[in-house]
Amino acid sequence: MSDIKKVVLAYSGGLDTSVILKWLQDTYQCEVVTFTADLGQGEELEPARAKALQFGIKPEQIYIDDLREEFVRDFVFPMFRANTVYEGEYLLGTSIARPLIAKRLIDIVNETGADAICHGATGKGNDQVRFELGAYALKPDIKVIAPWREWDLLSREKLLAYAEAHGIPVEMKHKAGGSPYSMDANLLHISYEGRHLEDPNAEAEEDMWRWTVSPEKAPDQAEYLTLDYVRGDVGAINGQAMRAHEVLAKLNELGGKHGVGRLDLVENRYVGMKSRGCYETPGGTILLKGHRAIESITLDREVAHLKDDLMPRYASLIYNGYWWAPERVALQTLIDHSQEHVNGSVRLKLYKGCVSVVGRDSKTDSLFDSTIATFEDDAGAYDQKDAGGFIKLNALRLRIAAKQNARRS
Amino acid sequence: MSDIKKVVLAYSGGLDTSVILKWLQDTYQCEVVTFTADLGQGEELEPARAKALQFGIKPEQIYIDDLREEFVRDFVFPMFRANTVYEGEYLLGTSIARPLIAKRLIDIVNETGADAICHGATGKGNDQVRFELGAYALKPDIKVIAPWREWDLLSREKLLAYAEAHGIPVEMKHKAGGSPYSMDANLLHISYEGRHLEDPNAEAEEDMWRWTVSPEKAPDQAEYLTLDYVRGDVGAINGQAMRAHEVLAKLNELGGKHGVGRLDLVENRYVGMKSRGCYETPGGTILLKGHRAIESITLDREVAHLKDDLMPRYASLIYNGYWWAPERVALQTLIDHSQEHVNGSVRLKLYKGCVSVVGRDSKTDSLFDSTIATFEDDAGAYDQKDAGGFIKLNALRLRIAAKQNARRS
Amino acid sequence: MSDIKKVVLAYSGGLDTSVILKWLQDTYQCEVVTFTADLGQGEELEPARAKALQFGIKPEQIYIDDLREEFVRDFVFPMFRANTVYEGEYLLGTSIARPLIAKRLIDIVNETGADAICHGATGKGNDQVRFELGAYALKPDIKVIAPWREWDLLSREKLLAYAEAHGIPVEMKHKAGGSPYSMDANLLHISYEGRHLEDPNAEAEEDMWRWTVSPEKAPDQAEYLTLDYVRGDVGAINGQAMRAHEVLAKLNELGGKHGVGRLDLVENRYVGMKSRGCYETPGGTILLKGHRAIESITLDREVAHLKDDLMPRYASLIYNGYWWAPERVALQTLIDHSQEHVNGSVRLKLYKGCVSVVGRDSKTDSLFDSTIATFEDDAGAYDQKDAGGFIKLNALRLRIAAKQNARRS
Amino acid sequence: MSDIKKVVLAYSGGLDTSVILKWLQDTYQCEVVTFTADLGQGEELEPARAKALQFGIKPEQIYIDDLREEFVRDFVFPMFRANTVYEGEYLLGTSIARPLIAKRLIDIVNETGADAICHGATGKGNDQVRFELGAYALKPDIKVIAPWREWDLLSREKLLAYAEAHGIPVEMKHKAGGSPYSMDANLLHISYEGRHLEDPNAEAEEDMWRWTVSPEKAPDQAEYLTLDYVRGDVGAINGQAMRAHEVLAKLNELGGKHGVGRLDLVENRYVGMKSRGCYETPGGTILLKGHRAIESITLDREVAHLKDDLMPRYASLIYNGYWWAPERVALQTLIDHSQEHVNGSVRLKLYKGCVSVVGRDSKTDSLFDSTIATFEDDAGAYDQKDAGGFIKLNALRLRIAAKQNARRS
Repeated sequence: MSDIKKVVLAYSGGLDTSVILKWLQDTYQCEVVTFTADLGQGEELEPARAKALQFGIKPEQIYIDDLREEFVRDFVFPMFRANTVYEGEYLLGTSIARPLIAKRLIDIVNETGADAICHGATGKGNDQVRFELGAYALKPDIKVIAPWREWDLLSREKLLAYAEAHGIPVEMKHKAGGSPYSMDANLLHISYEGRHLEDPNAEAEEDMWRWTVSPEKAPDQAEYLTLDYVRGDVGAINGQAMRAHEVLAKLNELGGKHGVGRLDLVENRYVGMKSRGCYETPGGTILLKGHRAIESITLDREVAHLKDDLMPRYASLIYNGYWWAPERVALQTLIDHSQEHVNGSVRLKLYKGCVSVVGRDSKTDSLFDSTIATFEDDAGAYDQKDAGGFIKLNALRLRIAAKQNARRS
Repeated sequence: MSDIKKVVLAYSGGLDTSVILKWLQDTYQCEVVTFTADLGQGEELEPARAKALQFGIKPEQIYIDDLREEFVRDFVFPMFRANTVYEGEYLLGTSIARPLIAKRLIDIVNETGADAICHGATGKGNDQVRFELGAYALKPDIKVIAPWREWDLLSREKLLAYAEAHGIPVEMKHKAGGSPYSMDANLLHISYEGRHLEDPNAEAEEDMWRWTVSPEKAPDQAEYLTLDYVRGDVGAINGQAMRAHEVLAKLNELGGKHGVGRLDLVENRYVGMKSRGCYETPGGTILLKGHRAIESITLDREVAHLKDDLMPRYASLIYNGYWWAPERVALQTLIDHSQEHVNGSVRLKLYKGCVSVVGRDSKTDSLFDSTIATFEDDAGAYDQKDAGGFIKLNALRLRIAAKQNARRS
Repeated sequence: MSDIKKVVLAYSGGLDTSVILKWLQDTYQCEVVTFTADLGQGEELEPARAKALQFGIKPEQIYIDDLREEFVRDFVFPMFRANTVYEGEYLLGTSIARPLIAKRLIDIVNETGADAICHGATGKGNDQVRFELGAYALKPDIKVIAPWREWDLLSREKLLAYAEAHGIPVEMKHKAGGSPYSMDANLLHISYEGRHLEDPNAEAEEDMWRWTVSPEKAPDQAEYLTLDYVRGDVGAINGQAMRAHEVLAKLNELGGKHGVGRLDLVENRYVGMKSRGCYETPGGTILLKGHRAIESITLDREVAHLKDDLMPRYASLIYNGYWWAPERVALQTLIDHSQEHVNGSVRLKLYKGCVSVVGRDSKTDSLFDSTIATFEDDAGAYDQKDAGGFIKLNALRLRIAAKQNARRS
Repeated sequence: MSDIKKVVLAYSGGLDTSVILKWLQDTYQCEVVTFTADLGQGEELEPARAKALQFGIKPEQIYIDDLREEFVRDFVFPMFRANTVYEGEYLLGTSIARPLIAKRLIDIVNETGADAICHGATGKGNDQVRFELGAYALKPDIKVIAPWREWDLLSREKLLAYAEAHGIPVEMKHKAGGSPYSMDANLLHISYEGRHLEDPNAEAEEDMWRWTVSPEKAPDQAEYLTLDYVRGDVGAINGQAMRAHEVLAKLNELGGKHGVGRLDLVENRYVGMKSRGCYETPGGTILLKGHRAIESITLDREVAHLKDDLMPRYASLIYNGYWWAPERVALQTLIDHSQEHVNGSVRLKLYKGCVSVVGRDSKTDSLFDSTIATFEDDAGAYDQKDAGGFIKLNALRLRIAAKQNARRS
């Protein structure tokens, strides 16, 4: 282990990564560079700097970055272009943040001449895989330190004991409540795992949810909004142009107010087990609904179906941590290409947990041709007799087989 | 045309198929057998018998069948085993009824010695394809009469004129309101197309919806229910065993009461155009949510992902009318096989348009192993160090490529 | 019909399209523009000009184009980047030429102000679909005349009678031998259908084959060749740089000499029937083998598998005539992207009908790392212990399920 | 390690597994049960028994099983029903034997009350994964000993030294030649890896190949054979009924004689590296060609395409060791279902390395209808005019998009 001289630590400032910081210093006798990202999780980052300084980290080796715009523009939006949903329900809020963190860790490795990275993800979860696959793809000889797979602080009690023994401040909540939910948050979502959620038959407690009001407490009045799309991405809300991360923040605000985006599910982790998670994804839930709606009038049927066929695979790639793998990039090439004409606007209604589409329009790219679809006289735009031949030829193989069947029996 | 002697007509008793009945008698000079099905559309069928008699149909050639149980048991439930959704949203309520109607038409052809079938679907829609592909697959030499592709009554005005000229009773609503929505209903859903829905940017009128209250008018109190699954199908609600069609009727009642299952979308028809439809599928919306939940704890990850990968194709097959095609049957074999262990119960909450899962359990088939997933000490059930090797080997190809990239640049 | 004033005819100069030319002039009373393409089919094109002049076509309305380079560069090579094979065997030699012909027909329509195109494909085959889908995609309001679907000259005898009645020269072979094979040729292949091939159990006659010697008559000495690849396309043979169509011509020569590329199969047509065809694709057979070999050392595993998964769909799109459809273009985007690093060389052996790979190399892009793969000591490049964790986590879901199974039984 | 009392060893009787046997006895101080399978590899098995006795294995703990029929009937044939090929070329000869060995190992564990299994596969290859995933799926708490991942005998020299030090007989070839090819054989194939094959650009030496003559030395006279299929499996050759393993042995003999089935490729291992292998699969190469041919006339187009779309995934599952996983079983359900009507006969020609189909026939299940496909007059079996409507509706979305494109530009 002695060959590690400098390590970049993904540092939140919380208890776990503070213990890790100290443990790294003690165990590896190495310099530590801390990296703390603002991904829109809604927490102050300056306390992380203060803590890092307390541990003796040099000021110039404390990285605190606002990655919100990059996160939404280069990760969240590209993912939503594919209408990405894992296992039919999960909007991948945690998964999609990991590759950006991996990238920044490696950037900082390159800037600081470090030889290792370190993260606080456990050995049972997906996040370790996402961090490390990203890191290896971007810097193949990087060393990775995953304390949860190395040390023996495997219960919360041991962790707390270590903290107290090493003078690491422990907040009241940790001491008092036993283990809190395991949570993760960024602009796309907040997630909850562990504790009594470990029984998949137990309903989540109402006071667990943080970002959304309960539908019951949401306003009695519905709210409408309009999303304007440019090449598959939302560029404006209610006519007001915004940057990517502003779009998502605004949709979180609107969705949260109306109780939109709560989800309770059991998912299949890449490491082989099922786990139960609860998620709040207010803005993402609106984005998905809106994107399908704008595609519904601007995207060719077969391109849309091709995307639908590939989506579960693309979702699994992101869930499993393969954002930086060439097969994800190859799929993205196709997905991004498909969005060229996905321009227009969608009108949505939010009400007590529901998002409904009430209209969609595209001045430049609509493939909806009401002169053909109409139930009224279409002035010859479509010759109904064509359908006869269409059906006859599509039925031909079925008829030949049916005759063969009849002969056989 | 003179070689058609007896035709089985899919007869609703409504204006359109009454005009068709008369037109068949006049144009083809043939005997007509009428077939009217109770698929749970919620309309009296005896008036259809009375009308048929008025047209001179022989009593023994008037078929009125209660197909509700067969419909849900053999068509709706098998489809929901696949979590089937077309284009991300549509639950295929119309599509799934067509193959059963096609089958009954051919059964009656065989019983009555008829040589043709006739239906009232237009030449622009999917239903003609669904009826006819089914009929050809089941009886390859059957003749098909599709009046909308043959006659010249292509506007509502001409149809009304024909009806009046031939003494066919026209209800007040037809005379008064101009063209009503084009609707279709069965136990799975009710659909609306046409009229001002032909503008995809226009919001549906509140008074269009028939089966669900608006979320705004739904009870202020949430309602919980429990679904018990046997091999992927719901066998009981709140502990009360029911037949398949009773399950769906009950879920429609509950969903409708709570405003669940409204949908407004633009879909891609098989015949090549986009069309806008609104749907109410209260029970189906609950079924989908519940089925994913019971699968989430009982189905192997890779089987679930295989199903997800195949689902859009399976959905398109049903949407396009290929229920009776061998590729649909082949997929069904896989899907049904996958449901062997999908047993257990799901607890759901209905509230103002939302269906949420609050718990899932399976005494016999749960693959959720909390001793492994736990954030607490797992007593050695899972060795976190294994994850290191898992990641290393999954990263190997990425690392080799990264090194090759580095050499190149 | 009288509204057609000028039609562009895909004109081979042969009997069928000469009859069509005359029939067009008589039936539609319209001007005819002839278009004859050199796609490498190995026939003189000037006789087509002479014949067209005889029919009174204006010299400036006779188009004779050498499309060989465009054909191979923009159609054949892109298709081979995907290792495209239809139904496991067919290399799509006919299919891939049709979109180029459709494109040129529409180009000429635009240049000459014509309002229709005409082709000589029958109503039973795939070619009509390929021509017409291409034409409609490129010029949506183009009129299409498909004489075989319109006229009553549906037997060879009637066609010959028409030809003689209208002074169209009929070659001896047509008069004498009854119907010859239906053939199609271009730089990629020559195909044979019809006649006694209509019995799928009858072996093709040796004297049918035109481009390849029989393996029995091929040289007793094997021949080696080297193909150099640039971004997935062959740019040189045996070190000699060539243009795309020269590459294919050279490979046809080499393959033909060694009896490579004969194929006898029954395929499923898009119009619903099975048909038996024999094909000679000497150069294409070599291209496929070589391309898989260069990809085997330069392409990432998961990208290769993604391509393999998508290939049958891509092949069907080309077979069915959807080259100009947006879903084909979307797939091509992915495929072309994947070829960035497919650079290097492949060494092949030709011998009596066989093509074998004997070596593959890439100085710049090889992902083959012999220091890792070696059975000898690898100096720590790969830690075999990692495999233990890799297997353990991949097995986890299987073990959990097995335990559940054991509990159940 | 002391908790292992009895281990079942997959024992070939060769040097490697003999060293393992001794090493197990020394290292684990445990009883060893040996298991040696006849999979048609063409080696005497009694010497393995003699050697085991020499190591002090009790006679009743020496298992020598003839698994040839089970291997071909329950593993090889089911795999060929899917036309399974990995990465476009590899017929999975090694992969498909592993799950059967895993199953027998676990059977013997259950019979003997052993608590562990042991195999001689290295930590770099796929076989370790295949053995262990199978074992874990069949007995989730089984212990697995993989000496190559544990011991330090990682070079051939160390292995030989250990053998000599422990009195294990070493054959001359091992002492003399340095490391031989790493080989594996069973009724489906023989494989070669390692040695100078580790340079993917080096041609394999002619004297490496063991089962096939070189095409150059194959007979100058072609040989024809007929395969009769029952539900997708070959049941007779040249009219002579045979058991499954006899079929494959006979095809190996015929193919070997004619130089059929050599393959030289670079493949992607599941553990993340590329490796070069040479394979002889004479019978399998004939089986694949024949199976596609019988399917070509008996299988519905869309079922065939569905199978083609799923095949690469199915192949990867087998290659990666997931035979006993539920997703492989689910796919097999679909595949086996599809073979119900795959009955008939195929006529093939073997000549100097080539297998060609010259005819295919099915008295009971042919979907080839020459009255429809004919180029001659079809007496109305197919109405060519139907094709017009078929094309028009398939083109509709392309035309709408083209018009929208035109408006935009």
